[in-house]
Amino acid sequence: MKKIILAYSGGLDTSYCALTLSQEHEVHAVSVNTGGFKPQDLKDMEKKALALGVSSFKALEAKDYFYEKVIRFLVFGNVLRNNTYPLSVSAERIVQALLLVEQAQLIGADAIAHGSTGAGNDQVRFDLIFQTLAPELEIITPIRDQSLSREEEIATLQQAGYDFDWSKSKYSINQGLWGTSVGGAETLTSHKALPETAYPSPLQKTESLQIELGFSQGELTSLNGEQGESVALIEKLNELASAYAIGRDIHVGDTIIGIKGRVGFEAAAPLIIIKAHELLEKHVQSKWQQFHKQQMAQVYGMLLHEGQYLDPVMRDIEALLESSQESVSGKVFLSLHPYRFELLGVSSEHDLMQSSFGQYGEKNLAWSAEDAKGFIKILANAGKIHQHQNSL
Amino acid sequence: MKKIILAYSGGLDTSYCALTLSQEHEVHAVSVNTGGFKPQDLKDMEKKALALGVSSFKALEAKDYFYEKVIRFLVFGNVLRNNTYPLSVSAERIVQALLLVEQAQLIGADAIAHGSTGAGNDQVRFDLIFQTLAPELEIITPIRDQSLSREEEIATLQQAGYDFDWSKSKYSINQGLWGTSVGGAETLTSHKALPETAYPSPLQKTESLQIELGFSQGELTSLNGEQGESVALIEKLNELASAYAIGRDIHVGDTIIGIKGRVGFEAAAPLIIIKAHELLEKHVQSKWQQFHKQQMAQVYGMLLHEGQYLDPVMRDIEALLESSQESVSGKVFLSLHPYRFELLGVSSEHDLMQSSFGQYGEKNLAWSAEDAKGFIKILANAGKIHQHQNSL
Amino acid sequence: MKKIILAYSGGLDTSYCALTLSQEHEVHAVSVNTGGFKPQDLKDMEKKALALGVSSFKALEAKDYFYEKVIRFLVFGNVLRNNTYPLSVSAERIVQALLLVEQAQLIGADAIAHGSTGAGNDQVRFDLIFQTLAPELEIITPIRDQSLSREEEIATLQQAGYDFDWSKSKYSINQGLWGTSVGGAETLTSHKALPETAYPSPLQKTESLQIELGFSQGELTSLNGEQGESVALIEKLNELASAYAIGRDIHVGDTIIGIKGRVGFEAAAPLIIIKAHELLEKHVQSKWQQFHKQQMAQVYGMLLHEGQYLDPVMRDIEALLESSQESVSGKVFLSLHPYRFELLGVSSEHDLMQSSFGQYGEKNLAWSAEDAKGFIKILANAGKIHQHQNSL
Amino acid sequence: MKKIILAYSGGLDTSYCALTLSQEHEVHAVSVNTGGFKPQDLKDMEKKALALGVSSFKALEAKDYFYEKVIRFLVFGNVLRNNTYPLSVSAERIVQALLLVEQAQLIGADAIAHGSTGAGNDQVRFDLIFQTLAPELEIITPIRDQSLSREEEIATLQQAGYDFDWSKSKYSINQGLWGTSVGGAETLTSHKALPETAYPSPLQKTESLQIELGFSQGELTSLNGEQGESVALIEKLNELASAYAIGRDIHVGDTIIGIKGRVGFEAAAPLIIIKAHELLEKHVQSKWQQFHKQQMAQVYGMLLHEGQYLDPVMRDIEALLESSQESVSGKVFLSLHPYRFELLGVSSEHDLMQSSFGQYGEKNLAWSAEDAKGFIKILANAGKIHQHQNSL
Repeated sequence: MKKIILAYSGGLDTSYCALTLSQEHEVHAVSVNTGGFKPQDLKDMEKKALALGVSSFKALEAKDYFYEKVIRFLVFGNVLRNNTYPLSVSAERIVQALLLVEQAQLIGADAIAHGSTGAGNDQVRFDLIFQTLAPELEIITPIRDQSLSREEEIATLQQAGYDFDWSKSKYSINQGLWGTSVGGAETLTSHKALPETAYPSPLQKTESLQIELGFSQGELTSLNGEQGESVALIEKLNELASAYAIGRDIHVGDTIIGIKGRVGFEAAAPLIIIKAHELLEKHVQSKWQQFHKQQMAQVYGMLLHEGQYLDPVMRDIEALLESSQESVSGKVFLSLHPYRFELLGVSSEHDLMQSSFGQYGEKNLAWSAEDAKGFIKILANAGKIHQHQNSL
Repeated sequence: MKKIILAYSGGLDTSYCALTLSQEHEVHAVSVNTGGFKPQDLKDMEKKALALGVSSFKALEAKDYFYEKVIRFLVFGNVLRNNTYPLSVSAERIVQALLLVEQAQLIGADAIAHGSTGAGNDQVRFDLIFQTLAPELEIITPIRDQSLSREEEIATLQQAGYDFDWSKSKYSINQGLWGTSVGGAETLTSHKALPETAYPSPLQKTESLQIELGFSQGELTSLNGEQGESVALIEKLNELASAYAIGRDIHVGDTIIGIKGRVGFEAAAPLIIIKAHELLEKHVQSKWQQFHKQQMAQVYGMLLHEGQYLDPVMRDIEALLESSQESVSGKVFLSLHPYRFELLGVSSEHDLMQSSFGQYGEKNLAWSAEDAKGFIKILANAGKIHQHQNSL
Repeated sequence: MKKIILAYSGGLDTSYCALTLSQEHEVHAVSVNTGGFKPQDLKDMEKKALALGVSSFKALEAKDYFYEKVIRFLVFGNVLRNNTYPLSVSAERIVQALLLVEQAQLIGADAIAHGSTGAGNDQVRFDLIFQTLAPELEIITPIRDQSLSREEEIATLQQAGYDFDWSKSKYSINQGLWGTSVGGAETLTSHKALPETAYPSPLQKTESLQIELGFSQGELTSLNGEQGESVALIEKLNELASAYAIGRDIHVGDTIIGIKGRVGFEAAAPLIIIKAHELLEKHVQSKWQQFHKQQMAQVYGMLLHEGQYLDPVMRDIEALLESSQESVSGKVFLSLHPYRFELLGVSSEHDLMQSSFGQYGEKNLAWSAEDAKGFIKILANAGKIHQHQNSL
Repeated sequence: MKKIILAYSGGLDTSYCALTLSQEHEVHAVSVNTGGFKPQDLKDMEKKALALGVSSFKALEAKDYFYEKVIRFLVFGNVLRNNTYPLSVSAERIVQALLLVEQAQLIGADAIAHGSTGAGNDQVRFDLIFQTLAPELEIITPIRDQSLSREEEIATLQQAGYDFDWSKSKYSINQGLWGTSVGGAETLTSHKALPETAYPSPLQKTESLQIELGFSQGELTSLNGEQGESVALIEKLNELASAYAIGRDIHVGDTIIGIKGRVGFEAAAPLIIIKAHELLEKHVQSKWQQFHKQQMAQVYGMLLHEGQYLDPVMRDIEALLESSQESVSGKVFLSLHPYRFELLGVSSEHDLMQSSFGQYGEKNLAWSAEDAKGFIKILANAGKIHQHQNSL
């Protein structure tokens, strides 16, 4: 009889795990809430888990941890995987795994169980972190090992008297602080978009709204002039912008296991924050800062997506990203419209465009025509020599 | 008396140059049409130039050349400077300069004149190419050298009897095959967006429209099923999509001379083509192809923007980009809406998502749970060892 | 009874495979000669293989193929893994695998067998290529599957009457056109260097010798003034330089399976060619060519090392590297000394240093002090503005 | 009459400046000692400067500052410009400029003067920093402005009664803590190496010597077991290794002004420290740490070389490099020989090679053959699919 931590979400897969593992082991169900569960959800989950036979249920509040450990770096780096996807789910899995290991070590568990299949990214993200931080823990994955179909899982649960409503919704939805993924049906094809109804947040408002985001050293610190904690502001902005059905798209990308995957998502706040933050950076960072942080941020996004959060290079890139935020403070003005938003402009003490220097293309107060010509003459040296030596 | 090629656009600056230079030299006005001039425009320009005293006027049709030399690589590389701007004007200046040099050498000119100021990017783009390809040619830039105000230029023209309408429009507009830039007024601030009326293409259609783009080895080869030359298709698509006021944005970036610049633009076709092309690539390219071509394309965009088109590294990057397009063939489905477009999906023989292999997260036909566990176990090796050696 | 292609080297592991597989299957032994085997070696191998019961033995001459497919790109890219190792063995495995697949398909084999263990890189390099190009072929790896010790293998061979001399040499040596690896004993520690005697090529000459390498578009085309095929020149140079015991070092790197590995090598010709080629490039390439080709070549080396030769990104990088060699023609002068060589200088028509332009630090014929000051003034713009806006 | 800070070295150029500027202005000569001057040198310089008429002379000791601000990051990044040059002079100029500005502001100077010509890198490095940090200061550069020849400078000095020995040595030598550059004669050609006698440190020892360097978080903290400050250890190591004439080479590179430059150097300690440090990193860092820090360090080296030390991206890269050194602690064993050194091995608590895991190619304790096969199978997925979809 093993002492097992079970990563529990209340869905079919983890319910099956809760039932069958509890028949032979001491199972402690843990739900890590990265922003997708409301208090009532957690109560329902607890009730269900206990009904299925687990020894205990624990909900870990992880939004702040999620923000501190991952989200703020995704903002610093303007990370959109494949120029599209804010890494909503990928990022959540990492912090869930980190907290599950911590919990397992806290209660002295022998094993960690999770409901991943053998065909996805999540098994890799979970297992990499479990094996790295706690190689002594056994990893138990009934769904992956037994290659069970939904029907078989339901049958097992029903035979045991657990007759919850397992009617599969058409779409598999994963909700969290940094976005909601929507998979299934059309996303399994290459050519079909998700229908309007597949997205959890329907269009509710059509009248344009102007808003203002305040950033301090790269972090969101105010919304429409009201200061607040970043996590609370993200939630507030998300509520505001989701009413405009903003932030919907489909991500097509390479999975860790080498196949292509396609998934819909809605992520109003993440997309708005990243694009606003990026605009502010254009005003306050040097050319090379922008260039190199973008290149390193693409690496950060790729490795995070692939579950390599614990590779020490991630700490190195975080150090670079954090350093790059020193002057990223100011306000960004935007307008919200149905299905889209517009970046209007910024205001910042560190704005490199608003200085006493010459304005682009208009006047040149700080240098003369002769200076400009000298600049260009010397800038042309390398090309002139190359041309001369190669056109003989 | 020198024989001068004058880069002529018919605007105030180049008209001033045409007038004053013709008073002492043999001036041959040349307009390189990268897509912004209609036949009637060119006729008007010719008439005006001759009236101002130039010895000859020549219009060079350069859309195909522009496409071959630059645009197709911008598509291959999905190049959006600072994730926003398709480099419309930057790219035009390059091909204009290349053709002006060619023309100067053809007629045995002593000098090339252009109307750039000393405060912008264009002087650098022009001069770098002139000095590299034809160091023997003098470069004459009256506006830069004399630091003239608009009023002074107008006065000179009027005194000489040329009383065209020089009333400055509020915005400076530059139109071409790869987009239209809109500068002035609000773009000189950091916080104001351009008003609706500043954009040349007003919203004309509101009913959504579904379209289909066909690509062959990375190049646009059909629109809604009709085959065509890329240049013609770009123009057709632009007409179609401009009616939805698609492709408007504001670019904030670093100029070659070290100050920040801000400019509005509308570029319906370029944005749609790049985003559609990028989506197709996500389906047909390997992870590392996408990653590295993106990084190299960012370099390509930066150097092109900075007038370094003749640096041989540009040819090297073009070779990489061209190689990466081998399997980028297929159809992309989109819908057009007021102010925005949606990517719906793709269809391609080379689609790496539609194969007999396992589907993401659903089934794993091609490998077993044990394979997946072995994969993860070995993938975890490096992290496990690192953790072990660093937590002693 | 299966028809099997066996990758055969004549060593203990593949001899064991030859014997045991032939007992039940039709085994066709194939040796791909990437430069390590002399004609007599191949005759001995054939005799031994037939004695062990294989149905046929075939030696494939692969030096030219090796050069064309891989080595020339390693030269173009100056590829030294971890700034040290010319990828001698990694590169060989790739071409061996490619030719083995070709051979298997030619004779309609059911399977490919090789003698790799489960602890190294070679299993990955072989299997990745076999599975990609010929997923229909079974892969048979007795040593990996049975986790046999040397003693068990020898016992099996002796029991079957094959009493060759299997006394293990202290070092495991792999020789080929692009270098010889030397593993074992000291290389299994982190702190010990290989003794003088571990290296196959002892120091034979002590008097310095001056030599001259000729390159044409990046490829070695002459040695001391004598033109020749690159492969022949590599061999000749290697003989010359090995007498000086040049090119010895120890490579420490990350294996594909996540552990660190350490291996000695001697590679006189590869190191001399790469360093001479790199020096020539410094004289003829633009700054950005050198910078970006180096970054892409590091990727190329990493992916080649990891067996990802068939990833299409490798073709893209090859296109970039090949393009970068357009002007890499000229002579390089070097001197050979015991254990080291010195790069003396180059001579090239494309040399960007020898032009009519100003000499570094000495005179400035092509520009004035005012030009230089204008250049610097404008180059300082961005920094000045940044300093101004951030020191308020 | 202006109050001028003169960057003074005691050479011909700055002596000319001292004399002529003092005739009209209040000149304060400042020598920033980055390791090249001995106490007696500084006394001689002071005497000479005062004789030439300067109002004051000040020597600023800058070795520690040099190390803290620049050298340690060059070690963290293993920075060798163009894989060769430790950036000895480039790095010195930066710290000299920083301290000169500080000094100018301290005494309330009106201007800074330096003896750079208009044909080199130093003018750019100095002026960029002066203009950025103190745009209010005038920059005075008599040698650049007057395009004087050596002979003219000597004549002026002699006429004024200053008859020092200005016989030009054949080579221009610049010595500092991080290496000595040797320019002139052969380095102005592309094909000639410097003769033995051109290098300041002749070969003095021929008997091999084994040494041990200790690193702590990337910084040199011991030599042959004796702890010490990094600066003192660098000097000690340099003395030890220079006796073997180690660290000589010729750097060929792109100057900031677009022409190619070639310069000899000797830098025994820098080369040994960098290569030893790099070897240690191979044992203790993850693959991705090594890969990305190398790419960013190449950027760091390029920008430092080009005088862009104050670009904020340099601080960002320093943050990444510093983060990457967390586990770079341990000992490195080397042997010194005439003209070369050998890296023997390392010993470190953080060594990722010495763990209880499987040894490369030998045994696999931590995983089974099945694990390896599963790993490879899934690693092959992407390639298999690509091959399948592209070979139809």
